[in-house]
Amino acid sequence: MNLKETIREIPDYPEKGISFKDITTMLKDSEAFKEVVNQVHENFRDKGITKIVSLESRGFIVGGAVAYLLDAGFVPVRKKGKLPAETVTESYELEYGSDQIEMHLDALTEDDVVLIHDDLLATGGTALAALNLVEKMKVKKVYFSFICDLKFISNGKKDQLSKYETHTLVEY
Amino acid sequence: MNLKETIREIPDYPEKGISFKDITTMLKDSEAFKEVVNQVHENFRDKGITKIVSLESRGFIVGGAVAYLLDAGFVPVRKKGKLPAETVTESYELEYGSDQIEMHLDALTEDDVVLIHDDLLATGGTALAALNLVEKMKVKKVYFSFICDLKFISNGKKDQLSKYETHTLVEY
Repeated sequence: MNLKETIREIPDYPEKGISFKDITTMLKDSEAFKEVVNQVHENFRDKGITKIVSLESRGFIVGGAVAYLLDAGFVPVRKKGKLPAETVTESYELEYGSDQIEMHLDALTEDDVVLIHDDLLATGGTALAALNLVEKMKVKKVYFSFICDLKFISNGKKDQLSKYETHTLVEY
Repeated sequence: MNLKETIREIPDYPEKGISFKDITTMLKDSEAFKEVVNQVHENFRDKGITKIVSLESRGFIVGGAVAYLLDAGFVPVRKKGKLPAETVTESYELEYGSDQIEMHLDALTEDDVVLIHDDLLATGGTALAALNLVEKMKVKKVYFSFICDLKFISNGKKDQLSKYETHTLVEY
């Protein structure tokens, strides 16, 4: 199955010149969705993953299914102010200004082997912020998984992620 | 396994007098998470479900895993302005004011049998709005699934949902 063909590209969204990768057409296609989850599971099944850390909100969808298949727990990383208990917080830069993401302080332990999953790797800004949250917990090891990788974007943040084993399904 | 014991109750959150049901402690517990997904899957495995419609963002986590197990497609319902293609929109009331949720116009067809999943049934306001979105597509049949049902809240919106077959795991 050509997974890339199941992703809809929306020109000039959210702004002129950007071709948005819309994975909802992939997710609603039961065979494509199954294939995505199976491939991520297959890649990480022998890594001893104990927790999937997924980013709000598109990362939750495949992340939940992969956590189930890997017999792992699921940990949400959310925008600031959404998690009800004590949290750790990280900032990341946006095109204009910055934003913050949070994870519960009790979400991970030093015994955890973590797979950080999100739908899209673009500038690497949120992935790096999620990594910083996870590393505050002194976990054993960290892996990354993305559905789409915008390879045409290259910068220092992505370089910082390159030392971690990373699995991606569709490249642009 | 007593699933209720894996849910953390946070007193006076988000405001005085409310005891917030925090499912993140359930999700990070790999056995509890597995049990939740298995029970939802078990309940709906013979219903011919073709699409899981889940509500942003906590509903995406178990919804994604259940879609995988049921060989169904996954359809996100999101806050207004988050979906990139043409949408249908519904409003729902909040304590003060109102909010809107959206679903892609091409997300469902008349052949679909739909399971609407969210983490929490409280007033039924968002569930009813999601139902209205789904029914605009003239689907064959609709079921509901919630992790938690706040039974102590009763009102007309919940009464409107009562004619649909609904599965809940933990009641308060």
